[in-house]
Amino acid sequence: MKKMENQGSLKRCRVKDNFWTPIQELISDTVIPYQEKILNDKVPGAEKSHAIENFRIAAGESQGEFYGTVFQDSDVAKWLEAVAYSLERKPDEKLEARADAVIDLIEKAQQPDGYLNTYFTIKEPEHRWQNLQECHELYCAGHMMEAAVAYYQATGKDKLLKVMCRMADHIDARFGEGKQEGIPGHEEIELALLRLYRATGEKRYLDLSAYFINQRGKNPHFFEEESAKRGWTHFGMDPKDTEYNQSYAPVRDQREAVGHSVRAMYLYTAMADLAAETGDKSLYTACRVLFESATHRRMYVTGGIGSSAHGEAFTQDYDLPNDTAYAETCAAIGLVFFARKMLSLEVKGEYADVMERCLYNGILSGMQKDGSRFFYVNPLEVIPGLSGKWPEYKHALPARPKWYACACCPPNLARLVESLGEYAWGENDTTIYSHLYLGGSYTSADGTVVKSQSSYPWKGKVSYEVKPGTSFTTLAIHIPGWCKEFTITVNEDEIALPVKDGYCYLTRDWKDGDKVTLSFSVKPRRVYADPRVREDAGKVCLMRGPLVYCLEAVDNGKNLCRLLLPRSVSIVTAHEKDEDIGSYVSLRFTGLKEKSFKHLYQDQPPETEPVPVKAIPYFLWGNRKQGEMRVWINEG
Amino acid sequence: MKKMENQGSLKRCRVKDNFWTPIQELISDTVIPYQEKILNDKVPGAEKSHAIENFRIAAGESQGEFYGTVFQDSDVAKWLEAVAYSLERKPDEKLEARADAVIDLIEKAQQPDGYLNTYFTIKEPEHRWQNLQECHELYCAGHMMEAAVAYYQATGKDKLLKVMCRMADHIDARFGEGKQEGIPGHEEIELALLRLYRATGEKRYLDLSAYFINQRGKNPHFFEEESAKRGWTHFGMDPKDTEYNQSYAPVRDQREAVGHSVRAMYLYTAMADLAAETGDKSLYTACRVLFESATHRRMYVTGGIGSSAHGEAFTQDYDLPNDTAYAETCAAIGLVFFARKMLSLEVKGEYADVMERCLYNGILSGMQKDGSRFFYVNPLEVIPGLSGKWPEYKHALPARPKWYACACCPPNLARLVESLGEYAWGENDTTIYSHLYLGGSYTSADGTVVKSQSSYPWKGKVSYEVKPGTSFTTLAIHIPGWCKEFTITVNEDEIALPVKDGYCYLTRDWKDGDKVTLSFSVKPRRVYADPRVREDAGKVCLMRGPLVYCLEAVDNGKNLCRLLLPRSVSIVTAHEKDEDIGSYVSLRFTGLKEKSFKHLYQDQPPETEPVPVKAIPYFLWGNRKQGEMRVWINEG
Repeated sequence: MKKMENQGSLKRCRVKDNFWTPIQELISDTVIPYQEKILNDKVPGAEKSHAIENFRIAAGESQGEFYGTVFQDSDVAKWLEAVAYSLERKPDEKLEARADAVIDLIEKAQQPDGYLNTYFTIKEPEHRWQNLQECHELYCAGHMMEAAVAYYQATGKDKLLKVMCRMADHIDARFGEGKQEGIPGHEEIELALLRLYRATGEKRYLDLSAYFINQRGKNPHFFEEESAKRGWTHFGMDPKDTEYNQSYAPVRDQREAVGHSVRAMYLYTAMADLAAETGDKSLYTACRVLFESATHRRMYVTGGIGSSAHGEAFTQDYDLPNDTAYAETCAAIGLVFFARKMLSLEVKGEYADVMERCLYNGILSGMQKDGSRFFYVNPLEVIPGLSGKWPEYKHALPARPKWYACACCPPNLARLVESLGEYAWGENDTTIYSHLYLGGSYTSADGTVVKSQSSYPWKGKVSYEVKPGTSFTTLAIHIPGWCKEFTITVNEDEIALPVKDGYCYLTRDWKDGDKVTLSFSVKPRRVYADPRVREDAGKVCLMRGPLVYCLEAVDNGKNLCRLLLPRSVSIVTAHEKDEDIGSYVSLRFTGLKEKSFKHLYQDQPPETEPVPVKAIPYFLWGNRKQGEMRVWINEG
Repeated sequence: MKKMENQGSLKRCRVKDNFWTPIQELISDTVIPYQEKILNDKVPGAEKSHAIENFRIAAGESQGEFYGTVFQDSDVAKWLEAVAYSLERKPDEKLEARADAVIDLIEKAQQPDGYLNTYFTIKEPEHRWQNLQECHELYCAGHMMEAAVAYYQATGKDKLLKVMCRMADHIDARFGEGKQEGIPGHEEIELALLRLYRATGEKRYLDLSAYFINQRGKNPHFFEEESAKRGWTHFGMDPKDTEYNQSYAPVRDQREAVGHSVRAMYLYTAMADLAAETGDKSLYTACRVLFESATHRRMYVTGGIGSSAHGEAFTQDYDLPNDTAYAETCAAIGLVFFARKMLSLEVKGEYADVMERCLYNGILSGMQKDGSRFFYVNPLEVIPGLSGKWPEYKHALPARPKWYACACCPPNLARLVESLGEYAWGENDTTIYSHLYLGGSYTSADGTVVKSQSSYPWKGKVSYEVKPGTSFTTLAIHIPGWCKEFTITVNEDEIALPVKDGYCYLTRDWKDGDKVTLSFSVKPRRVYADPRVREDAGKVCLMRGPLVYCLEAVDNGKNLCRLLLPRSVSIVTAHEKDEDIGSYVSLRFTGLKEKSFKHLYQDQPPETEPVPVKAIPYFLWGNRKQGEMRVWINEG
């Protein structure tokens, strides 16, 4: 359990393959400009954002009222962070100039004492720091710190970094041991302060992060006391609901992933990062327990977490309803953050497996193929007439909207996808880790360069060309948990390697130009849920490689619940090209369709007739004609 | 389509058998006295009622404030109606004296102009008749009219009848063609006015009922206009939600059972009764369409209707979730009312089938075996940790409470069970109909007496001993839809009779003492839901005779979703005797239990091991140790 890597500039990990590069290009060319327009209220018909204007008003450059949620600033922060990664990948002077202008605004919006938050600056300056439970001041600060670090690393420009150091100093002067007691109602600043610490070397930021983490839950009545002291509320949230924000117990005593799932993931990510930074074993143990709780018992097959719309929250073990699933895009993104930090603590394939599950399914599903619309909620079943309409299903929209009043997910997705290289690679003194099968290249601290080519996820072939540096000895390649057979060749020779905790370790006397090729089958497979998952009993999910598949009405007609996939039926792949969703691999099989009854109930099981069935990758759902969708298929 | 019978005094239809008589005795000996105590706030730990005290205050006999819902009076009305049926079945001077005293109070609470409603009399006299949408004045009046008719028929005492005629006159003077426009927000008075008309012969009551029915939905903006006119709200209900109270279209144009399911059933019952009374074919057609909508596509296997807690409402075809089911006891009772009136319009076995389905399952489940606790909501699946706790499942309690703030269901169940004889029998000029297999006797208008003996539902044997009257020619016996084979003997001779629309018609030259015996098997059977019911796909429900069975954790351990019932496995019956639930027949089989996974998802289907499984009648669930329950079993 040692800290194995210092994640830093994206320049060391380039992505270039046929799957992710087009998505990154879409983010750079379409999503980032689109989101910039949104933030500037220039997209007709989309939810009003006003986020840039809020900064303009706070900076004294515009007149008007604050508009939006109390955490509106974070949309700008996440956009700037995505811009930073995009610039790092692909310089763009005009975009950089526009981002610089936004940063100028942010600097001007900062108060003389270092405070930065447009809501409280414009609207309720007298209420600053009184409502950590509901008011997201620390959360917004955290996101802006992340943006500041990313922008600094991408461009070398430190204006925003200095702004956020002043804000961090402001916070540090107020909160901590012997100062004012405080923990954020929405975790985020903890992980951001660790990034700020690493970017600046300022140990106070590490200590402040540790304070927020270690203080959490020590006084489980903190938010109640805070609420009583101030006597006002912003959202009317219950300060006694300490599970919601993971403040019910000290973090090391927490045993289950509970409450608001995004809050939980951001906290756990910070805990794992702090454990890696400090070597704190008790914190590592808590992270491990919480990771198991979240992913062994409370995660959808798509990597979605937080099964209930009420509180956007975890419920209890094995409670994973498909039609009312919340599975917020941000929560799956947060799980990737958490899994990535766990990988830095210990190399275990299951962390990379979770990243892969989330990335290729419950995260990518958050964005329309053309980058113009986004899901906040990612259901595994859509029922026309109910989904998005009936109260229990109101949150589970059957089509992606243009934007949201609470717009956390779209920019979160943008920043993750643009920084994907960091999730694909890792290193320690002698080893380079390939966690994800991304084409591109990785340059390690000792100057080793590994160039990868990948046709994943559509094909099971990845190759690595190595130019060894000074201390490099080992290339460690993740073998996904679902992959039972594979071959590895080095140059022309096939070699047999054991899988150790999900990784193959290839140690040799590396020569410049050595080429390692990994091949495996991505034949369609049937996946089952633990029988304690009530909603998936008797059902099967189709996967191919990392991709979860689903059925849509546009391919299969109405009443998808009438389709059975008999256990003996073979599933074939087909290469498709579609106007709306481009090229992809579908799965096809001859299913059985249950015939409807004369009466609602009868003593005979339904008769069936064979029908052709087509499944498409889950991440592509909702891009064609709106209608029914389901991931879990009844098994015949 | 002619009106075949004039349902009247319960004295003509006596119930006496080993299944229902103990339940009726329980109602008389336990439930009615218990509810009387509740209404008088004498049950510690139960929800406060204050319903009698409200009448006392309105009568000027007590000082204090009104307490309870705006429809609190109806609890007293339904209790009085149950008392009336109980007295008719089994005289009880003391109970009658106490009921007389309550009626004295009600008379004193009536205002000089005939108005009767304690909420508006005590609390908001200035707001009378301004809020038909929300305030239940007509609803409460309707229930008290039903009580008045029942009490008059049971005891011959007409004090309450006169009170309610004055109230009906008061309403008639205000509402109708050429008078103030008005329809009730919660239907009930329509069916009550028809009863009042039949008890008194006053045609104005028939006309007023017809006005309320025919006016409904003619002006779909009525509640909006009413709301705008008064400028205040009681519950904050949306006056535009015209589906909720079935006012979105004229009743003859309504094609789907929508909205609040109890409201819907009370309306449809009145529509069917009015159609029978007037021979109105268009109204009959609407009833038929609505009956099919409610029972062919929107009814649980238990007879429960109204699948959503939001608005206690119907949702859409085949949407019948088991764990979040609402399936209010009152709604199933309302469906029995409706089905019974449809039977008066046309003799079709499906109406009797629906009555039977509701009575033996989704209605009886509403009451604890000992009569002391009640369910409002009747889920088909209970999940510890979620049911009754988590927001989506909050309404689906895992155990019956003592009483409810909105206490509509317990007295509704009491009045239905006490008047069950009326649902069991019917007649027209020459024929007596046995709709339900109840032991007891029926005396027809021509003096025919049919005595029945029944061991239903535990055994498939019913016999009828006939003493023919002047015009009797035919005994028509309902054959349940699920019963495919039966034998009928007359005296000692077996005879073959066709089933016509669910009934066997036995016409002969009847002799005094002729005995007809019906025998059929009640062997366990598997029941399937139409494959369009998403939640029941791949599942099977066990039934025996009219009884739906369920699994409880107390018999089968946790994780009932892991139990499979293979299609080839035989199901045997066992006679049980239990401390808490008495004697009953259980179903037992060797099921397969799916083994849990090492990981949440895996590529192999679960392994299984054989386990003994025990199912109990659904109506008995929740009487032993609290825990998981499910009706629909995964089929292996």
